[in-house]
Order: sequence, then C-alpha cells, then structure tokens
Amino acid sequence: MAFQTFPYAVLHAFAEQVFLKMGCPEAQAREAAAVLLSADLRGVDSHGVARLSGYVRLWKGGRVNAAPAIKIVHESPSTATMDGDAGLGLVVAPAAMRKAMEKARIAGTGWVAVSNSNHFGIAGCHAMMALEEDMIGIAMTNASPLVAPTFSIERLLGTNPIAVAIPAGAEAPFVMDMATTTAANGKLEILQRKNEPAPAGWIQDQQGNITTDQHGVKKGGALLPLGGTREQGSHKGYALGAMVDIFSAVLSGASYGPWVPPFVSFLPVADDMPGKGLGHFFGAMRIDAFRPAADFKLHMDQWVRRFKQAETTEGQEAVIIPGEPEAKMSVERMQQGIPLIDAVVSDLQELAAAMELAPIA
Amino acid sequence: MAFQTFPYAVLHAFAEQVFLKMGCPEAQAREAAAVLLSADLRGVDSHGVARLSGYVRLWKGGRVNAAPAIKIVHESPSTATMDGDAGLGLVVAPAAMRKAMEKARIAGTGWVAVSNSNHFGIAGCHAMMALEEDMIGIAMTNASPLVAPTFSIERLLGTNPIAVAIPAGAEAPFVMDMATTTAANGKLEILQRKNEPAPAGWIQDQQGNITTDQHGVKKGGALLPLGGTREQGSHKGYALGAMVDIFSAVLSGASYGPWVPPFVSFLPVADDMPGKGLGHFFGAMRIDAFRPAADFKLHMDQWVRRFKQAETTEGQEAVIIPGEPEAKMSVERMQQGIPLIDAVVSDLQELAAAMELAPIA
Repeated sequence: MAFQTFPYAVLHAFAEQVFLKMGCPEAQAREAAAVLLSADLRGVDSHGVARLSGYVRLWKGGRVNAAPAIKIVHESPSTATMDGDAGLGLVVAPAAMRKAMEKARIAGTGWVAVSNSNHFGIAGCHAMMALEEDMIGIAMTNASPLVAPTFSIERLLGTNPIAVAIPAGAEAPFVMDMATTTAANGKLEILQRKNEPAPAGWIQDQQGNITTDQHGVKKGGALLPLGGTREQGSHKGYALGAMVDIFSAVLSGASYGPWVPPFVSFLPVADDMPGKGLGHFFGAMRIDAFRPAADFKLHMDQWVRRFKQAETTEGQEAVIIPGEPEAKMSVERMQQGIPLIDAVVSDLQELAAAMELAPIA
Repeated sequence: MAFQTFPYAVLHAFAEQVFLKMGCPEAQAREAAAVLLSADLRGVDSHGVARLSGYVRLWKGGRVNAAPAIKIVHESPSTATMDGDAGLGLVVAPAAMRKAMEKARIAGTGWVAVSNSNHFGIAGCHAMMALEEDMIGIAMTNASPLVAPTFSIERLLGTNPIAVAIPAGAEAPFVMDMATTTAANGKLEILQRKNEPAPAGWIQDQQGNITTDQHGVKKGGALLPLGGTREQGSHKGYALGAMVDIFSAVLSGASYGPWVPPFVSFLPVADDMPGKGLGHFFGAMRIDAFRPAADFKLHMDQWVRRFKQAETTEGQEAVIIPGEPEAKMSVERMQQGIPLIDAVVSDLQELAAAMELAPIA
C-alpha cells in the first residue's frame, strides 16, 4: 500500500487549523488536534487524522457544537456528572479527565460520567493524563452500535473500549487500551483495504453465523464481543461491553445500547433516544491514596520485569507489556514522522480545499 | 453423575460449624459460611462447599488465621488499604467491601485494596453487597498462578475474576462475575470429572500449543486468557487479568503474578514473595453520586428490557442479562435444595469425622 510520511508538527498544525475553522476556541482546537494525533503516534491509525473529515462531517450535520459550554450537572466529593454540550469528544474527554484528577487530588479518587458528547478518539490518551500526577487513569466510552451480544443478531453495543494507565518507576507505564470486541473495527478496516478475509470469531453475518467475509458487518452482520463464540467466552466480552455502556451512559444520562448516535454522519439518529449523545466514564486514583507512590513503583517495576523475562512460546521474543509497542511507536513516529496511506492523504487534501486551508505538505 | 440434594440451611449450618471448629469468631463463621454457600446457590459449584475442605487444609497448614485482626493500614476520603491478617478471604472480603461502602456513603465512592488475604469465594457475592444501598459494587482478586500471558509458556497470572453488580428498578440487577480467562478453572474440573476434552482455546500445553487435553494444566500447561489465541484477542484477556493483579496486589502490598500463594495447601509458597498473601480490590459507587437513583433505575430497566427483547440467533430463546441465570438458580436452590455430587458429599462426611462433627444429613 502506498503511503507518504508527514512530520507530527505538520499534521498537528493542520488538524488544529481544521478545528479552528469549525469555530473551536484556540485552546480547544490545539487540544483536540493533540488527542487526535496521539492515535497516529501510537499506531492506532484508524482513530487519528484518518477520522478528521468524519468529525467535520458530524459538525456540518449539526451534531457537533464547536464551542461547547461543558458543565457539571451533579457532583459529590469523589464524583461528577458532566454534560458535554454536544462538543467534540476530543475536547470534552480531557475536560472530564481533568475534573476526575481534580477530585482525586482531594478525595483520593475521582470518577466522572459524561453525557452529551461525541467520539473521543483513543481511550488510552485520556487515561494516560493521570500518569503525570502518579495516578492510575481509567477511560471508557460507548460507541455506535456495531456489536451483537451473545445469542443475538441485533447490533446493540459499540466496540466500547476500556483503557487503564498505571504508572511504573524505571519501566514504562502499563497502558491497556482495548475494544471489548475480539477485534476493533479499525482492524477490520485494514482487512477491507487489503481485501483479505477476517479470522473466524471476529464477525457474524445477518443470521448470526460466524463469517470470514471482511465486509460482513456492512452487509447486516455484527462485530463479536471478545471471545467470539459462547464456548470461547463471548458472554464475557458482551458483559464487559455492557458494563462500559452502563457506566458511560446509564450513569451519565447519555444514550445507550442501540440508541447511541452513530459516528457516521449520514446515518440517522434514533428519534426516541433515551439520553443525550454519547457517554464516557473516567476515573483517576492517586497511588498514594493506597500506598506510598515510591513503593508502588518499585513493585510495578518488578511486576513488569518478571513478565518481560517470562519464558516464551517458540518463535516469540518476549511477553509484551500492554502499552509497550505503542510507546515505542510513539517515540519513533515523533522522530521519523507519521506514515499515512494515500487514501487518507487524498481525504485530507480534499478537506483542506473544502475548508480553504493550504494543502498539507 | 450421582448426587444428593441438601437444604441450604443444612449446608450453611455445617460450614458454620466447621469454621467454628477452626476457631473463627461466631459472626465470622456465620458470614464465611454464607459467602461460601452463595456460590452453591448461584450454581458456581466449584466455589462452594466443594472447597470447604480446601480452606480447612490451608488452616491446618498454618496459612489461614482463623481469628484475624483485619486492619486499615492507609486511607483517604474515598480509599482504604487493608491488611487481612492472613484471615479467610471469605471474612476479609466482606469486611473490606463494607469499608468501601462506608467510604462511598460520605465521599460518593469508596475503593479498598486488600493485602494478606486468602481465597475469597465468588467475587459476585461481594460486589452484590453494594446493591442493598443503591450502589454499584465491584470486586476482584488475584489467585494462584495458572494462566500464561499471551506468548508465554509460564503461568504468571491467576484466573483473576472481575465482578460488577449494578442495581436496576423492576428488573433484576445486572451482575457480571467472570474469570479473565476463556474458561474458569471450575469449568475445566467439570470436564475432568466427565472425562471430556476441553474446547480448543481454553488451555495450552507445556510448549504453549493449544491442546484439548482436559488435564493439560496439571501436565505443565496453562489456562489461556480470555480470547484464547492472539488472533482472537488473548492479549486483551491477559491485560484484564494483569490489571486485576496490579489493582489487587501491587496497590495493596499483596503478592502478585507468579508469587501469589497457591490455594492448594500442599504446594509450596515462594520464599521470595514480594508481598503479603493474596490481594483483592473492591469498589462501591453510590448511584446518586452521579444522578438520582430513581432515574438511573428507570433507564437500567429500559436497558435490560431492550436487550432481553433482542432478536436472537436461531435456536436461542433470548439474550441473557449477566447474573440472570444465577439469580434464578439461587431462588430455585433455596427452595429445592442444593445438589452435591457424591465425591463432594464423601469429602464433606470425611471432614465431619475429622473435625468431630455430626455427618451432614
């Protein structure tokens, strides 16, 4: 597949310009661009600048408020419920995570449920904000319904990711960031571009049979919860996805289950939505609310080293610590640039023209 | 398989007597018996009275303190770290969950990390304590190392379960309670008793190859993280199990990873343990710290009903709400008694004789 490589700064500046054109206040445009680009840096290409035009279409469709008044609608010493005022999730999520951390500074932990938001980029980026203050960060969100619960042929859940970021000492932090499905939708998009079949266990067809057709979801099928089949534990992936939906939306007052507004702007929004927009849920826990941070970090280092030194199966180099490949990729791409496939470059150039911005170069 | 059925009260009284003989204070013996029996009621037969003699062996081996002084070693407004004083997990866990709920009453949420504990029965039982006060309950624990992380042939994690209990209104609560492996060890024990092979994706052999040998773990293999294989997302199950280990033990000061003391009393305990005993982690979140409980429950009911009414795959009656089958089983077994297979009955009668108690009848 042909691709071109661009420096981080170029893509960040471009995304920032696009958000400014949409009418985002300066600080929000800068932050939204940074959140978006964090996906490209970490190698989650499906969630980075490849989605920029999707956000613009949502805004054009009147579903994104470029200058939201994000507000607290309910709170307790360790919690808050926020209304994102239909803002970009890329802006609403960091604001909510900051609130969770603010609560944690005083109460030990902070937990924030958010309604009336939109797609927030990669969950890991928000969870990782907590690392700067020696906190554990947690981020989750519901998403467009693409996933069938075990035993169902209806799409009732999104890929509903969970991210957990845990600081270490000398070792890199532990950062898990996972869709609660066997495979994230982005993984399927890659197979579609390559015209390769999907492994059995990723998707089912319209009748609920396992299919390897990489276009099966578009044909009325569904993504499968982590586990794939009942025998392989798909009821657990379903339960995790359901938990994310409930924490993100039933707790916050957002829409849930099949009523979650779709990211794709031309798809209709349900007219009987039970809540407002997408929902997210964030947590921040001060390490020293449990034990001195220095002790914790020593033991995290020992934990990480023991796992990295584990004896491997044949042909594998080492056990991977969650977040390790993404951290390496981040450093590499910050230095060497971010490769974008031609289809994404064309899409961005068209966007530049439509928004009367200079093409990226 | 031959079995006999006993009334709940008979088995509870028997377990209580056994704990009293061990030297547990009266209230603790009663509570430990109730926690143990909650597994039998809910149909998780591997974690109920079938394990009673295992707890006794741990106590005889000097690894369980029958009269622990459970204490708080660190706290903040929304958190506490507790030392279980080597007590039965069946007693330490409810004490810690009560502390989490006490914190939540004032701070909105409460989070308790526990070290120096032992096997705590089923996670769901502890999480469900929160339901009585319109709170969401969360319980997790690390466990004897039986699980190989993705790409490894070493057993570095336990089946590390996560339970989340969420109240509803007219509908039954949502209660997920899942091992972070494809299949819990108890599921494997059932296949061993029936002499049936394990489905591919549950376990690997000593070299890390998928095996259907139901005795594969005993032969030096390992249970697999939820997902089973890398392609099917086992790195996600591994990350979840790792998170449970870190929250339960690195945060609390308990032993973690391969150093978790085994439940089987004749297996040696590592002499370089990095912490004390097993670790658990509990959470309690007041619903009304986020939104009025009545609103939440209305929406939970709508959530549950929508999922129950979903169109099913052929041959399936309905989508199952997590905890629904266990709640039904609980009512049924409370009324009709608890069936125990002959091997478990013999084991209990031997235990009765050894502890100079009347046989169960």
